[in-house]
Amino acid sequence: MEDLIKGVRHRDRRSIARAITLIEGASDEAEALAEALYPHTGKAYVVGVTGPPGAGKSTLLNRLITHLRGEGLTVGVIAVDPTSPFSGGALLGDRVRMTEHALDEGVFIRSMGTRGHLGGLAAATQDAVRVLDAAGFDIILVETVGVGQTELTIMELADTVVLVLTPGAGDIVQVWKAGIMEIADLFLVNKADRDGARKLIADLEEMLDLAGKKAWRPPVIPTVATERRGIDELWRQLQRHRTHLRESGEGATRRLRHLRREVRGRMEYRLRQRLSELMLEPAFREDLDRLHRREEVPHRLVRKWLSRLFVGEGGESS
Amino acid sequence: MEDLIKGVRHRDRRSIARAITLIEGASDEAEALAEALYPHTGKAYVVGVTGPPGAGKSTLLNRLITHLRGEGLTVGVIAVDPTSPFSGGALLGDRVRMTEHALDEGVFIRSMGTRGHLGGLAAATQDAVRVLDAAGFDIILVETVGVGQTELTIMELADTVVLVLTPGAGDIVQVWKAGIMEIADLFLVNKADRDGARKLIADLEEMLDLAGKKAWRPPVIPTVATERRGIDELWRQLQRHRTHLRESGEGATRRLRHLRREVRGRMEYRLRQRLSELMLEPAFREDLDRLHRREEVPHRLVRKWLSRLFVGEGGESS
Repeated sequence: MEDLIKGVRHRDRRSIARAITLIEGASDEAEALAEALYPHTGKAYVVGVTGPPGAGKSTLLNRLITHLRGEGLTVGVIAVDPTSPFSGGALLGDRVRMTEHALDEGVFIRSMGTRGHLGGLAAATQDAVRVLDAAGFDIILVETVGVGQTELTIMELADTVVLVLTPGAGDIVQVWKAGIMEIADLFLVNKADRDGARKLIADLEEMLDLAGKKAWRPPVIPTVATERRGIDELWRQLQRHRTHLRESGEGATRRLRHLRREVRGRMEYRLRQRLSELMLEPAFREDLDRLHRREEVPHRLVRKWLSRLFVGEGGESS
Repeated sequence: MEDLIKGVRHRDRRSIARAITLIEGASDEAEALAEALYPHTGKAYVVGVTGPPGAGKSTLLNRLITHLRGEGLTVGVIAVDPTSPFSGGALLGDRVRMTEHALDEGVFIRSMGTRGHLGGLAAATQDAVRVLDAAGFDIILVETVGVGQTELTIMELADTVVLVLTPGAGDIVQVWKAGIMEIADLFLVNKADRDGARKLIADLEEMLDLAGKKAWRPPVIPTVATERRGIDELWRQLQRHRTHLRESGEGATRRLRHLRREVRGRMEYRLRQRLSELMLEPAFREDLDRLHRREEVPHRLVRKWLSRLFVGEGGESS
């Protein structure tokens, strides 16, 4: 364990990979590791990148990594696919578009799927980001595929959220409904050389007008990732937002809010787990049968079992 | 309380209305009432009716009520609109299409919205259905507007689920996605005199073919509610399904499963409530600040607070 922590702190690739794999397992050892690393976290700038499939996020990230490396910055990437059961090294080989950075010591890329995260995908992603943070990467990019509730929750670990859209994809309504518009700090219109890009940009600007005056108005940035166009502007706007977060105090407020939600999420997860265990107990099943036969009453049964689970619940005696 | 229980059991309209209002408040008194009534429940046949807005569900229910009254059966109706904050008497006046039964002692209709259900809408609906059940109504119809997750949960109190669709509405994919197709025991194609009805029926039958051979194959019933067409066939198929539920044992299995889910839902609701209370405590907020300053670690903080909440959680000493 000592060696593993040391390895991560020295940004040793194999140690980082092992640490993330360990943490995904959610064992006691994993908790001990996460606890040991946590005091060394909080320094990295974490950028979440989300948007519907096919928006060109991977190409974009690839270009951004190259740009950041050119600025002398180290970059960690966690790519999360909530629809895929695969995680870890298996998928890395598939992410061909990112392999150009495979030999670069200043870049670490990891894929995560839904399988084997005993504490939930969002918590596992958060822990993986913290491994990279403790390893001293300057920038950590977290990519999610899709725009559902899971992706929204995952974005709650980012300092800055980038929403990637493309013209003519017709996804804008879906994105709206998912509530991801509200949390975006930067809008990227990728494939901006396509028909409809101008209209999409105008629509987004109009939407931002309607949202009214705020301390930070999300910029709308046209990019053509395949031709490296707009990447420098993306980085400029990310830096501008990072400065805004620091100077306005919003950065600290946001991190505190995220920690609050993370703790709540971990507690809820554990509570649900306990409930599932409880409901497998023979005594609980017998009570359900009694309920079915009308010899027991739902409300009383609920109170009874909550009192066995909870400190301070009155139960039947109250 | 004694009088109220007696009133409900004698199917006194004012007592029933008062009982449901009381139960919606989720007070200690409400729990006592629900407990007193529960042993008298389980006799009614509960039919859930769901489907996208505009499918003509209210007209259909109205016709079905008339048909059932003609058979000498008493009917209770709970109409749930998860998108409306209004409940109780306020909305009853709006449900003009059902007012023809307003003076009929053998019919009781109640609307429920989302406001004021401290135990959650699904639990409140279940309790309201039980009031009608204890009052001795033969058939209880539960109508929901929409096809989202809430509606799906509400349908888990029904013995039989009827899904109402209309041709050309383009809602079928949305209904699919919501997972409501799987729980439907009867498919109703309402407005069956319209273009596209034949195709919708064929599509549904094909889908049922693909689902393979099961003990119960949901019938697809064309209706034109406005002209009272198909209502007798609907009732015939409902009776057929009720017989199937009884003879196959599926009815009892289903009720036990629903009770299990209900108890779990009530427990989860209470657990989340406790968490919210906990997170408002000054000591918890101080711990979050310490977490933010990296003087505390998320995993340890979670264990610590769970140990204060839970019987048998090890906490820091484990």
